[in-house]
Amino acid sequence: MSEDIRRLALQCRDAAQAVAALPTAAKDAMLHAMADALLADAGAILAANAADLEAARGKGVSSAMLDRLRLDESRLQGIASALRDVAALPDPVGQVTRRDTRPNGIEVERVRIPLGVVAMIYEARPNVTADAAALCLKAGNGVILRGGSEAIRSNTAIAASLQRALEAAGVPAAALTLVQDLRRETMLSLLQLTDIVDLAIPRGGEGLIRFVAEHARVPVIKHYKGVCHLYVDAGADLDLALRLLVDGKVSRPSACNALETLLVHAGEAQAFLPHAAEALRAHGVELRGDERARSIVPDLSPATDEDYDAEYLDLVIAVRVLDSLDEAIAHIRRHGSDHTEVISTRDPAHAARFVQALRSAVVMVNASSRFSDGGELGLGAEIGISTTRLHAYGPMGLEALTVERFVVRGDGQARHPAPDPAARAPAASA
Amino acid sequence: MSEDIRRLALQCRDAAQAVAALPTAAKDAMLHAMADALLADAGAILAANAADLEAARGKGVSSAMLDRLRLDESRLQGIASALRDVAALPDPVGQVTRRDTRPNGIEVERVRIPLGVVAMIYEARPNVTADAAALCLKAGNGVILRGGSEAIRSNTAIAASLQRALEAAGVPAAALTLVQDLRRETMLSLLQLTDIVDLAIPRGGEGLIRFVAEHARVPVIKHYKGVCHLYVDAGADLDLALRLLVDGKVSRPSACNALETLLVHAGEAQAFLPHAAEALRAHGVELRGDERARSIVPDLSPATDEDYDAEYLDLVIAVRVLDSLDEAIAHIRRHGSDHTEVISTRDPAHAARFVQALRSAVVMVNASSRFSDGGELGLGAEIGISTTRLHAYGPMGLEALTVERFVVRGDGQARHPAPDPAARAPAASA
Repeated sequence: MSEDIRRLALQCRDAAQAVAALPTAAKDAMLHAMADALLADAGAILAANAADLEAARGKGVSSAMLDRLRLDESRLQGIASALRDVAALPDPVGQVTRRDTRPNGIEVERVRIPLGVVAMIYEARPNVTADAAALCLKAGNGVILRGGSEAIRSNTAIAASLQRALEAAGVPAAALTLVQDLRRETMLSLLQLTDIVDLAIPRGGEGLIRFVAEHARVPVIKHYKGVCHLYVDAGADLDLALRLLVDGKVSRPSACNALETLLVHAGEAQAFLPHAAEALRAHGVELRGDERARSIVPDLSPATDEDYDAEYLDLVIAVRVLDSLDEAIAHIRRHGSDHTEVISTRDPAHAARFVQALRSAVVMVNASSRFSDGGELGLGAEIGISTTRLHAYGPMGLEALTVERFVVRGDGQARHPAPDPAARAPAASA
Repeated sequence: MSEDIRRLALQCRDAAQAVAALPTAAKDAMLHAMADALLADAGAILAANAADLEAARGKGVSSAMLDRLRLDESRLQGIASALRDVAALPDPVGQVTRRDTRPNGIEVERVRIPLGVVAMIYEARPNVTADAAALCLKAGNGVILRGGSEAIRSNTAIAASLQRALEAAGVPAAALTLVQDLRRETMLSLLQLTDIVDLAIPRGGEGLIRFVAEHARVPVIKHYKGVCHLYVDAGADLDLALRLLVDGKVSRPSACNALETLLVHAGEAQAFLPHAAEALRAHGVELRGDERARSIVPDLSPATDEDYDAEYLDLVIAVRVLDSLDEAIAHIRRHGSDHTEVISTRDPAHAARFVQALRSAVVMVNASSRFSDGGELGLGAEIGISTTRLHAYGPMGLEALTVERFVVRGDGQARHPAPDPAARAPAASA
């Protein structure tokens, strides 16, 4: 069994070399062909999805999970159109990011190349099968897709459709490999293939992500959760702050870039909190506050330390009143998840201090946490979000699926132009 | 014990925040003060080193190891001067690598920030204690140094000296933490601190590196070995090729960027190999060839598949005669280590194909493999070499000790400007 997954991964790696060699126009044509194939195969895909939905209903899964699993004509159109959007993005592969001629005349270039083979580990959303495949392939990589068992029929139909488009473009189907064997030990074997898989990206609940992070021997890029903060500074524009608060909490509470905690400077709490509570409650939000917040808005439920660590993903927000910017920074350092933090302030020095003191992947000054998203930040698309402070940090687009290497061109330069046969260097590193 | 290393690492993380906040001038002054301190403490450091050397001799370690361990006035001057060189390098922290104003008016910047805490795991060279500390601190990080037991007295004296300079600069000494407890289980505990250590860099023999890579839960950047190839193409300038061959093999055979395998196109083998053998033998190099090479230079010893996988780190080279560029590419794909490959050619299309087809971190056209080095490639210094195709690939300088994050500035932009209280988004990711 672990031999099977190894064989599949090796086939993907070989196929990835063909993808890496494709010029941009060929990759883009392939992505359009993939979109066409999905629409042409809509009947088969929707039938497979209906079977997944029926099986899931039989197991009594939640309605939220059923919604994530469900495809229809309109969602399939959306998936196809996302593939065309990826085709329209600039190709990072081959980009020369730096060029330098050294004193000895060698020309040193940094050039983006694909990572190689990316393993996506995800749960019930069948759209990830197409979205992730598109981004990985556009960046010149092979992709191994391991989705959730609830979506296996949908994923299989989507992958088969996409693979036909690959083959029509002259790319081996294995460049897009869907794992059919969903046993946990097979996923473990996949995550141990350090000589074949260059990166694993888990997407889904915190449990799945922790499982992948704890068991992988291949590099993993991930984020566990987004405990995003809004700090309303002394002297802030309170209308502006209220706009960021409401957008951050209610526009999509289930998103990882939704606000989970509101921190308010004591000097503004009296003026701000009653309005904040009213506006949030109009959207059905429950507020949980510390003693000071509750002294201003008496009917708040009490917040505990656990509330300040929580990623509610729901219409709940924790509130705390603080005496200074430094206290806000200390709170976020203690409870934050390195995802996204927002300051609402009129003081440029306070904004600078907030940005400098916090190590989070995304820091916003007077803008909504909900902009912490690959599309909104201008990456064009998003393969995932990293709170690992390595390679990529924050929303990851196409570029994060490549790495820069060195290409050197010379005309015969040697490092030690005329080595003396008698001189033997002692054992040493470069 | 694992509690102790956790406590040390937490102290380092806290101290790293102070380093991250230092302006460039303060960091550079600190690096000069570190250099001054090393020279002022030369007596104590050399005495500690003498004790290490005596203990090592008592254990009967190799003369190569003794040479790596040994410090003297001149080597200490070299270490101090390397610290000043790091001070002179441009500071990557705070660099704005991209700036973009989105259609909604938010300004998105990508800004370099420090990684956080870097753990260096190394063997007998006490100079790494100062070199690695300098690079990590200049990039705004804290550093946890875990050197080899043979060098513990030297490392302790060097670290104590450097820490005094840190404290004089107002930086907590813990920003440079030397692990005194060298038990293997303590190193294992250090490599499990995923919430504190942002990156581990092992430097040393393949055994140490494999141990770290296999046991770490924190991200690891590493290279196992450098099996570097020179391919002499059909129609190559054979004098130029000979220069690259001799420089690559003999100028420092123990370096990871030294050549280990010579691939020659059959059309040039008759003309090239006798000269190559003669030139290499004049430097004491043993050549091991395949059948075809031995039919041209009859007294070559035979090469096996193991020779083609070997990193000799010694005056030995494997030789193979091939019929085409594609055969050379296939050989390197099979036997290479993704480190550095060289083509000697006059044909730009062949050069382009070689560069494109190989995924190695550094590819050279008509230049010596020995340029695969941070200093030679213009990075200014080198903290390590990565053949992990993620974050950094190839020689790593200061920049590889930072990561880009997002800073967004707006004037109150919300993603969904006026959310409708009645509309609740379904559970979904960003």
